[in-house]
Amino acid sequence: MNRTALIQQIKAKKSFLCVGLDTDIQLIPQAFLKYEDPVFEFNKQIIDATREFAVAYKLNTAFYESRGVAGWQSLVKTFSYLPADCFSIADAKRGDIGNTSSMYAKAFFEPACSGMSFDSVTVAPYMGIDSVKPFLNFDNKWAIILALTSNEGSRDFQFLKADENRLFEHVIEAACSWGTAENTMFVVGATRGESFLDIRKKAPHHFLLVPGVGAQGGSLDEVCKYGLIDDVGLLVNSSRAIIYASNKEDFAQAAHNEACKVQQQMAAWL
Amino acid sequence: MNRTALIQQIKAKKSFLCVGLDTDIQLIPQAFLKYEDPVFEFNKQIIDATREFAVAYKLNTAFYESRGVAGWQSLVKTFSYLPADCFSIADAKRGDIGNTSSMYAKAFFEPACSGMSFDSVTVAPYMGIDSVKPFLNFDNKWAIILALTSNEGSRDFQFLKADENRLFEHVIEAACSWGTAENTMFVVGATRGESFLDIRKKAPHHFLLVPGVGAQGGSLDEVCKYGLIDDVGLLVNSSRAIIYASNKEDFAQAAHNEACKVQQQMAAWL
Repeated sequence: MNRTALIQQIKAKKSFLCVGLDTDIQLIPQAFLKYEDPVFEFNKQIIDATREFAVAYKLNTAFYESRGVAGWQSLVKTFSYLPADCFSIADAKRGDIGNTSSMYAKAFFEPACSGMSFDSVTVAPYMGIDSVKPFLNFDNKWAIILALTSNEGSRDFQFLKADENRLFEHVIEAACSWGTAENTMFVVGATRGESFLDIRKKAPHHFLLVPGVGAQGGSLDEVCKYGLIDDVGLLVNSSRAIIYASNKEDFAQAAHNEACKVQQQMAAWL
Repeated sequence: MNRTALIQQIKAKKSFLCVGLDTDIQLIPQAFLKYEDPVFEFNKQIIDATREFAVAYKLNTAFYESRGVAGWQSLVKTFSYLPADCFSIADAKRGDIGNTSSMYAKAFFEPACSGMSFDSVTVAPYMGIDSVKPFLNFDNKWAIILALTSNEGSRDFQFLKADENRLFEHVIEAACSWGTAENTMFVVGATRGESFLDIRKKAPHHFLLVPGVGAQGGSLDEVCKYGLIDDVGLLVNSSRAIIYASNKEDFAQAAHNEACKVQQQMAAWL
């Protein structure tokens, strides 16, 4: 999906909500365990319950890999079930030397190789240009590069200051020269409030993928206040707060309600 | 495998060679394509041909993921075929917020979850402490943290100087406080010759996993000159130079010969 189509979807749905399918087999309602693929059955119902309000779905690969081959089967099946009008994100945080990153790009972008063709993959920047570039060689596909993350450990290195910039600013500056606002986004944690001002100085036009609203404590209003641009430029992710809104029979309705609530908050900002 | 057992293996085999099973289905001899799982069949023969000289095997997950579910099946089968006396490395370069990194740790360390129980996983440090710690919670398992990589892009961020240290030195210093030389190693590219002196100032006792000898142009002698410690402290990886030593029928013999050659060079240093 290209930038124009993504913005169209956002405007049509009055939403920049990304639903994170971080599906943990131990946290879904027990009733699903009777299915051959409980995670996929759960994801289907969550997708059906939220697609009216979501413009993107993010699948964090860790939750699938943790179940080995069976988990990859759930991943591929869930990818296939994603609505065509939604932007798809493989939240894999990959990155390796050039020829190896090409293999990761194949894994998530080339259906002939893996059965999947996500619109985007999250990428870790530590290894630099050749670890990222292979993800930029696909039409209408995106690399979403970790910049300023939402977790405790983000303080360890991302704020180190070298010359005039902190590490996350170096990453953004470099990545802006590797790709464009048409094929590159940045991960910026919602727990970072005013840091969005600094991010927007470095990347005024790029889309930002924003995790950390909900379970991690970030404020949607703060993110919008400092992060929104004319072209919207935000995809705000919520995982646990939506998919585990209830762990009872009403989980789908609860997910629906929670997604609706977030969408309405977003609509007010658009 | 713990540090004592690893050092015993190294001394017994007079080798600190790690063979990298970066198996690309397009580069293996055509004859394998007749098998149901060509990559696994190829890996078996490479393992059989090199296990006399190797103390470790490293499986780069990208080469398996690029084939989707079928690739993960090859990964699990290959893991199961690794010799018990060899140290096993899932070269996955994972890293995410704490609860998600725990899922990656399960993927590679917990056989009940994924069918695999590698001795170690490579980990990307960008997201800091909580992205690494979950890998340190398993007895006799290791996190191998990216410090100074062998690729072109390593120059983009790893040498940025903040205060007295460059980023790779910050990473090593921090990680030395998160774990110990009994559960943490560092990735240092063989193309970095004299940088090993700087690394050893920060991590005098840690094992280093050293890619980049062979196809990437690093010198084994330079690595040994600057990197060896009393407890050896090195695992030097060779992937393409061994597994693709020949692409003809004699590929296994060629891999055997190449591994033997490297092992002899290593024996001279021990």
